[in-house]
Amino acid sequence: MTYRAPVKDMLFNMKELAGLESLTAIPQFADYGIDTAQAVLEECAKLNEDVIAPLNFEGDKNPSYWKDGQVFTTPGFKQAFKQFAEGGWQGLQHPPEFGGQGLPKTIGAACGEMINSANMSFALCPLLTDGAIEALLTAGSDEQRATYIPKLIDGSWTGTMNLTEPQAGSDLALVRTRAEPQPDGSYKIFGTKIFITYGEHDMSENIVHLVLARVQGAPEGVKGISLFIVPKFMVNADGSLGARNDAHCVSIEHKMGIKASPTAVLQFGDHGGAIGYLVGQENRGLEYMFIMMNAARFGVGVQGIAVAERAYQKAVSYARDRVQSRPVDGSVAGSAAIIHHPDVRRMLMTMRSLTEGCRAMSLVAAAAYDAAHHHPDAETRKQNQAFYEFMVPLVKGYSTEMSLEVTDLGVQVHGGMGFIEETGAAQYYRDAKILTIYEGTTAIQANDLVGRKTLRDGGQMVKAVAAQLAATEAELATRSSAAAAAMRKRLAQGREALVASAEFIAGQGKASMNAAFAGSVPYLMLAGNVVAGWQLARALMVAEDKLAAGEDSAFMTAKIATARFYAEHILTRAGGLRDAIVEGADSVTALALDSF
Amino acid sequence: MTYRAPVKDMLFNMKELAGLESLTAIPQFADYGIDTAQAVLEECAKLNEDVIAPLNFEGDKNPSYWKDGQVFTTPGFKQAFKQFAEGGWQGLQHPPEFGGQGLPKTIGAACGEMINSANMSFALCPLLTDGAIEALLTAGSDEQRATYIPKLIDGSWTGTMNLTEPQAGSDLALVRTRAEPQPDGSYKIFGTKIFITYGEHDMSENIVHLVLARVQGAPEGVKGISLFIVPKFMVNADGSLGARNDAHCVSIEHKMGIKASPTAVLQFGDHGGAIGYLVGQENRGLEYMFIMMNAARFGVGVQGIAVAERAYQKAVSYARDRVQSRPVDGSVAGSAAIIHHPDVRRMLMTMRSLTEGCRAMSLVAAAAYDAAHHHPDAETRKQNQAFYEFMVPLVKGYSTEMSLEVTDLGVQVHGGMGFIEETGAAQYYRDAKILTIYEGTTAIQANDLVGRKTLRDGGQMVKAVAAQLAATEAELATRSSAAAAAMRKRLAQGREALVASAEFIAGQGKASMNAAFAGSVPYLMLAGNVVAGWQLARALMVAEDKLAAGEDSAFMTAKIATARFYAEHILTRAGGLRDAIVEGADSVTALALDSF
Repeated sequence: MTYRAPVKDMLFNMKELAGLESLTAIPQFADYGIDTAQAVLEECAKLNEDVIAPLNFEGDKNPSYWKDGQVFTTPGFKQAFKQFAEGGWQGLQHPPEFGGQGLPKTIGAACGEMINSANMSFALCPLLTDGAIEALLTAGSDEQRATYIPKLIDGSWTGTMNLTEPQAGSDLALVRTRAEPQPDGSYKIFGTKIFITYGEHDMSENIVHLVLARVQGAPEGVKGISLFIVPKFMVNADGSLGARNDAHCVSIEHKMGIKASPTAVLQFGDHGGAIGYLVGQENRGLEYMFIMMNAARFGVGVQGIAVAERAYQKAVSYARDRVQSRPVDGSVAGSAAIIHHPDVRRMLMTMRSLTEGCRAMSLVAAAAYDAAHHHPDAETRKQNQAFYEFMVPLVKGYSTEMSLEVTDLGVQVHGGMGFIEETGAAQYYRDAKILTIYEGTTAIQANDLVGRKTLRDGGQMVKAVAAQLAATEAELATRSSAAAAAMRKRLAQGREALVASAEFIAGQGKASMNAAFAGSVPYLMLAGNVVAGWQLARALMVAEDKLAAGEDSAFMTAKIATARFYAEHILTRAGGLRDAIVEGADSVTALALDSF
Repeated sequence: MTYRAPVKDMLFNMKELAGLESLTAIPQFADYGIDTAQAVLEECAKLNEDVIAPLNFEGDKNPSYWKDGQVFTTPGFKQAFKQFAEGGWQGLQHPPEFGGQGLPKTIGAACGEMINSANMSFALCPLLTDGAIEALLTAGSDEQRATYIPKLIDGSWTGTMNLTEPQAGSDLALVRTRAEPQPDGSYKIFGTKIFITYGEHDMSENIVHLVLARVQGAPEGVKGISLFIVPKFMVNADGSLGARNDAHCVSIEHKMGIKASPTAVLQFGDHGGAIGYLVGQENRGLEYMFIMMNAARFGVGVQGIAVAERAYQKAVSYARDRVQSRPVDGSVAGSAAIIHHPDVRRMLMTMRSLTEGCRAMSLVAAAAYDAAHHHPDAETRKQNQAFYEFMVPLVKGYSTEMSLEVTDLGVQVHGGMGFIEETGAAQYYRDAKILTIYEGTTAIQANDLVGRKTLRDGGQMVKAVAAQLAATEAELATRSSAAAAAMRKRLAQGREALVASAEFIAGQGKASMNAAFAGSVPYLMLAGNVVAGWQLARALMVAEDKLAAGEDSAFMTAKIATARFYAEHILTRAGGLRDAIVEGADSVTALALDSF
């Protein structure tokens, strides 16, 4: 088996850190306590371990390919997608009224991690479909919802997000695709979209493209962008498929990674105009798209955790098997498995602690999402929404950046074999690199954290989080263990670094925006580092208590060791980040443009 | 043009930091002052910019391939190698008596950077040939030197290093290839070698394999390994080529990067035995191989700098062209080239300052090599040799690890385009990953730094270097500029962190070897970071003085800005590394083996 889902760690995080049981107080989640979660996760693990994971390497070797406007996916993908859909996995988090299961995101996120560990390229199709469903749920008309959502949930159709154009990447103000109103209320869409994930493929009967375009006469910039449904095949009144729409895949990209996932160039309207239907109101497209994007950003953060977990498992397995050199501590007389060497342990612990820290962070964020959307109390919803929004750039930005470090170490543990493609470790390294780019680069996440989530409220949200950290530190202070003491020391330093950085950023006026944004990515990395560390601090205390109570001592001992490693090797990066942000802003933009 | 050699920065480093002019006091380098260096570098730049660099992307697209035991290199490689050889570039650093130019390594290293920036896959062939020449110069008989070296220098033949076997990677004690003495004084070699760079190719008439093997009855472990010359074609007494030797390439690897460089599996002796000739004495093979390896390790460090420079140039070019979003400082009204965005600047400055820092470090090390090998005074030779040996793991380990960071940022600057192979940025990311692995992984370099260069002398060498840093700090203290003050502050913190770490490591007894080695790679990264920063500190002072004297103000201003950025954004990592090394050793090995 090439992948074993970390069900136990997921359940520990859900129960002990994310408060899954308390979510059952929300009426619609009443049945989704830890036992249900366990049953769902175990079922999910089976599908991913047995069916989807074995296709991962195959997808890298035999990627999707384009021929005459059609895209053919890796052998086995179509059948696996059928099994995935028939198992009801696409509808996991979506409303029962449309055929979904209505599970909390807290459980859904763990399932999302599994499918992405199993096969990131494959998982992108459901991930994008989730986004399309969310957008239609939020902004679609009753008719649109009834027409599209059930088919998206049952896997007959899949969804795409069409934002990027050659001149409009991070900057959607530059979108030029145009929509011409038709007498029947529909629109004709004309333009080119690039980087469209699963923009064309052979795994479903139809593809529902959600497309950003400008209606003629709309305002310039992002305030003139509308959102349209453009189905690949037109949908008849009875739900059956009609004519082929004028939306065609003219090529797919040749990428460094996630090769099995087709990245399409879509041409709309080259043969008279693609028929599109306005979603919601004109010129509010970006707002709707942000709903999709926030869901997708969280999902991409989970992809980072997922690929890190898979890389970790592979590295552990190799480190146990590969015999090379004598251990420096003399514990083995001859050559030993390399897992006995301290630096291999350091690499594995770095991989493990980063992955577990980000998993904890993401599941805590998912629980906030669930409360924000479904809690009966409005104030609770509001608070959770604010916390969730603060967490999204951290989950996306930090988890994906850490996945680059983890997959690099994964190759490194393998030595020369890691560089050989047949080994498989290199694939994770190549696959992971897209994660810091799509759905908003790390810099875009950092802009969000600095702009909307620090400058706008003068750093209040960060300080509220810091107060919670201080409370955790106070709890740690009541404990006598060396692990708790080490964690407390490093968490306090991390918190102080974070607050100092937030204050520096919040203190910049309009005249010094460059200084505020010069450290945006280090600030994001600092915030992610400290918030993930905070969750491991909480985990450490739970584990100490469980251990004292004699519960699952191997797991709890491992959790304590992992948390302590994070404190001593990862949280210790905080001071350097603070120094760069607070004292190094000017040197970022000092070099004259023509001196580069 | 896709690559422009940084001749000016190279000359600045040679002259102002590496003391090239003082090397001219050494008789054989009397003619190789800065003017000669400039002439050589400009000539070298032409060949690499015009001929070799354009083949880099082609090599990735159309790699070397194997057919029926033969390896065919990328179209254009053979012709380019001919030009390279005819230009005398293979012999640059080798003795004139064998047809070389006898230039100092200080100049050779800069030329090495250029060819590796131009085309790392191509450059590996000369790099390995250099290693073979060095080994034969050191340990070969007069006859062997006369037979092989001139042909290796004139490019008729190339050289390889055959160390690795499937079960023997970092651990050469496990080498099993055997050598059977023959009545005529030769040996028959039997065994399988893997990961042999340019182990088979079509660019030269013959290939001189240098092969580690065990003579029957030799001691176990590394003390029973001997070094043999195994030519692909036998060499007749008149120097012409004779029969094909029984050394055959049975396959080449399918790798993540450096695809144009064939990585061969070589089978020795499957048809009766490959004829080999002992180099030097029996059982001293590892000692000779280390000569080659030290040269090759330095060369691989330079490869890191080289690929970083190329990635930097590409990223700058894209950042100047790509228009996207309004600058946060309002300096441009509409969408602007992304080089106007602070985070893009941060990425470019990180790339630039790491590259320049490592370049300075490597050229200073190269000058120490030159003095160590050729200075008339024995004590000077000894001191320089000790310093050079201390620097080799830093140049290799730190420059290659930084190249992963730089090439990652190179992709990141390109956004989504970076992930598309046609853009070319992804190739550097894939290519660079081998550098932290071959010629001794980063952990092997770190073991060398901890074991031979810190534990053995109780940290004396590190403290001697620290004393030199303190002297640089004292010089910085006499200056009034903010840049000098920032550098002094961070360099002092870096030095203190380095000394504390060295003391911690040197203080570990036999009972705590795990603790000494747990932080080996962080210690290597810390040492490299601080020593490269030290060179930039020296550069900063020179640049301030030149600027005051009105000399080349754009270059000097840029050097100051780059050095200051390094101080504030890279040297600031030192404290966290110290904390992990000194206070985090136990947590590295705390997790039970069966809990991974």
